[in-house]
Amino acid sequence: MTRYKLTLEYDGGPFVGWQRQANGLSIQGALEDAIHALSGHRSEVIGAGRTDAGVHAAGQVAHLDLERERPGAVVRDGLNHHLRPHPIVVLSAEIAPDDFHARFSAISRSYRYRILNRRAPSALGRGQTWWIPVPLDADAMASAAAILVGEHDFTTFRASDCQAKSPVKSLDRLEVVRDGDEIRIDAKARSFLHRQVRVMVGSLKLVGAGKWNNEDLRAALEARDRRAGGPTASASGLCLVGVEYP
Amino acid sequence: MTRYKLTLEYDGGPFVGWQRQANGLSIQGALEDAIHALSGHRSEVIGAGRTDAGVHAAGQVAHLDLERERPGAVVRDGLNHHLRPHPIVVLSAEIAPDDFHARFSAISRSYRYRILNRRAPSALGRGQTWWIPVPLDADAMASAAAILVGEHDFTTFRASDCQAKSPVKSLDRLEVVRDGDEIRIDAKARSFLHRQVRVMVGSLKLVGAGKWNNEDLRAALEARDRRAGGPTASASGLCLVGVEYP
Repeated sequence: MTRYKLTLEYDGGPFVGWQRQANGLSIQGALEDAIHALSGHRSEVIGAGRTDAGVHAAGQVAHLDLERERPGAVVRDGLNHHLRPHPIVVLSAEIAPDDFHARFSAISRSYRYRILNRRAPSALGRGQTWWIPVPLDADAMASAAAILVGEHDFTTFRASDCQAKSPVKSLDRLEVVRDGDEIRIDAKARSFLHRQVRVMVGSLKLVGAGKWNNEDLRAALEARDRRAGGPTASASGLCLVGVEYP
Repeated sequence: MTRYKLTLEYDGGPFVGWQRQANGLSIQGALEDAIHALSGHRSEVIGAGRTDAGVHAAGQVAHLDLERERPGAVVRDGLNHHLRPHPIVVLSAEIAPDDFHARFSAISRSYRYRILNRRAPSALGRGQTWWIPVPLDADAMASAAAILVGEHDFTTFRASDCQAKSPVKSLDRLEVVRDGDEIRIDAKARSFLHRQVRVMVGSLKLVGAGKWNNEDLRAALEARDRRAGGPTASASGLCLVGVEYP
């Protein structure tokens, strides 16, 4: 058996999410079908982040095992051939050590969230942004975001179905920058709770719209209660941009 | 009658092009239908650039006349409401002088062309790039592009059906920059011949792939013959990004 590390880009729009599910096509399922078409065998694909339905990736990492060793470039091109017409592509496939584990070996995940902040909806970035027509103060959002950086109990910012044992996580980075009509929020941590980025973004949106100030955000964090947090931001704005390994 | 200047963003993918045609939905046609739904009257929309089928816009400019004067923001929001679900949006609508003409008053058009230059096709930028899997030398393309800047007879770089009276045009800017896997080509001129940007990009691609050198490009320009030029680059990579007025 040879282990491969895959780096993936996908448009999450048409999928039920990363994880195989009975109710529709998953990214994991589409990849496993392509591996079967390429190798004649079924092999489970393990991803670094189990992205939700509608969430995109520009740098998801996954691993899989093949019975026969092939050069990485052959695996990459072969999987891309069999993945068509799904909007999933293998950016690179490399032979990895047998103990490489896409999920457990990862030391950080980086996400980018894109808000389209203008009166007109999106035509060219459709499905890849969260459209908010009311003006948002990105500087206020950036200032509030700094409150969430560091080690905290993020219970307020996790989905009620989150299965993580502990709600305590260390958030390394949460930066908000405006570029014209677009507000970009970059988040980085060793790992995130379920929907953590989207609930943090939904809460920062309240700050940007002037409904919350920094103290409101701090109080929400300290409440350790999902009901104290903001709304869950749209899946369409979220993209897993990178995963780091030692 | 009140004249309005519209600034538009659209995904050209599903349309037969800017111009009304019998064989399918055009951007002009979709806009005129939205104007009719908003005002109860039909009004012709004139665009600064008649983009081809599949070509996008981030800053197309158009004008139209309405019988009753309304604030620009009302026209913008009303047209956006009636344009749904088409991927066409009005970024701004402003009352303009009666003699403002989107096409004839324009003093420059700016286009951006995006090449995705990597082995894997696109998942997130699908339909908005030209995918070229063989490595291209962007520096060589940038050097060759400089040959085309200035006033020239661009017969080599215009479609055989181009209706412009003269093939002589002044190209103000043709810049090639690589950003990771993407090569961006920015072109600016008072006006362009039909398909000029796409044939210039198709010719620069030959330089990037090492099939042509600068002298080959110069010879192609001097041949004043479409058959001496490179292939027409894919419509999907082209975007009209802006139009300038005095």
